Amino acid sequence: MDNLNLGQHISRRYNEELEDVRNRVLAMGGLVEQQLLNAMEALENKDASLAQQVIANDLQVNAMEVAIDEECNTILARRQPAASDLRLVTAVIKTITDLERIGDEAERIARMAYDLADEERVNRLFTQIHHLGQHARVLLRGALDAFAHLDTEKAVATWNEDRKVDREYEALLRELMTYMMQDADSIPFVLKAIFAARAIERIGDRAGNICEYVIYLVKGKDVRHTRLLEDGVPGDD
Amino acid sequence: MDNLNLGQHISRRYNEELEDVRNRVLAMGGLVEQQLLNAMEALENKDASLAQQVIANDLQVNAMEVAIDEECNTILARRQPAASDLRLVTAVIKTITDLERIGDEAERIARMAYDLADEERVNRLFTQIHHLGQHARVLLRGALDAFAHLDTEKAVATWNEDRKVDREYEALLRELMTYMMQDADSIPFVLKAIFAARAIERIGDRAGNICEYVIYLVKGKDVRHTRLLEDGVPGDD
Repeated sequence: MDNLNLGQHISRRYNEELEDVRNRVLAMGGLVEQQLLNAMEALENKDASLAQQVIANDLQVNAMEVAIDEECNTILARRQPAASDLRLVTAVIKTITDLERIGDEAERIARMAYDLADEERVNRLFTQIHHLGQHARVLLRGALDAFAHLDTEKAVATWNEDRKVDREYEALLRELMTYMMQDADSIPFVLKAIFAARAIERIGDRAGNICEYVIYLVKGKDVRHTRLLEDGVPGDD
Repeated sequence: MDNLNLGQHISRRYNEELEDVRNRVLAMGGLVEQQLLNAMEALENKDASLAQQVIANDLQVNAMEVAIDEECNTILARRQPAASDLRLVTAVIKTITDLERIGDEAERIARMAYDLADEERVNRLFTQIHHLGQHARVLLRGALDAFAHLDTEKAVATWNEDRKVDREYEALLRELMTYMMQDADSIPFVLKAIFAARAIERIGDRAGNICEYVIYLVKGKDVRHTRLLEDGVPGDD
């Protein structure tokens, strides 16, 4: 297997292009993370105007995806990358798709936050959703750090952590369901909270996808749909 | 803009490779469509064993994604495709990601079907979910047909049709919510029905994504995140 030799090209311009595309992915990741944070804050503080801001900013996330995608296509066409460079470009194409959809989930959470801004009941539920959101945010940060430093250990640790978020979501779901059964009037409101929780859970899954791309990029092995990650990275010795 | 000249290469082997990758996407699409149909049938007929079969078959969908992805990487590395060939390969990489996730949604529906197999209440709700599922299936078929024949008109029509599925889903959601409010005991059960309906709605969204890739492939323009599709394909005259 070829070793990662990003930034080792004879053409300085080509090095710069690859470096630029990586930096743009990290910038996009930073924006998406901020969107998630703001959506959570809008939900917890019943801040309708912050929620609107998140909804408006999603356009920027989308524009970044399209721009990076275009840059990847240009590199593929002009540079005809091979080996680890090619894996970088394909990993980027997949990563930005997941980042864009994490942005969509943040927007969904913001829409719930906007709808729920006047709701006076059960602030306790918001606290728990906020906790779940914090956990998902740690996963997203872990995935972005793993991508930034091509750190497979971090990628594996983050990937494994996602299952904790899944279990936390399941427990929260049971609690929200009990709440609905005790107070039928709360149903439309709690259902929105459930959708927000589900959006957060999906963000964790997508952060896990990004971890898989990082492992593929570094190791040259596709670990998707395997349970091998639980015992460490395949190909690691 | 270059015209599509798939299958016009001097290397016969290269032609065959591109043709093969397209055929494999269509085969994967056919399997995913069958998974959706079976999941819907399992839900409507309370057929737990068919539901289990859908869950088991998802492994096959995943394996197809990994295999096609690998083939795309090999073509990128060996053939260094340009212009429309490059767009074909990147469109395939994105399409199979959405197909795999449509497969995941079908599996989710099958899991709900399995859990609900002993539920005697409100068969009427299943009929409506089934109707929504039929609609989503038409979208998926439209997207696959558009991909098979590189038919942008079909892609635009299918993309526009997705908004009807969204509206149908919203109406069904309101009805399911009313049902929960009238009968608190039904909540855990109806919530599963809501998640199944939501999974179907997401399948429609993903079929819409595939339509966008087809337009990109044929026209060389990225139409994601635009509302231009409503007035026809950008670049069409």
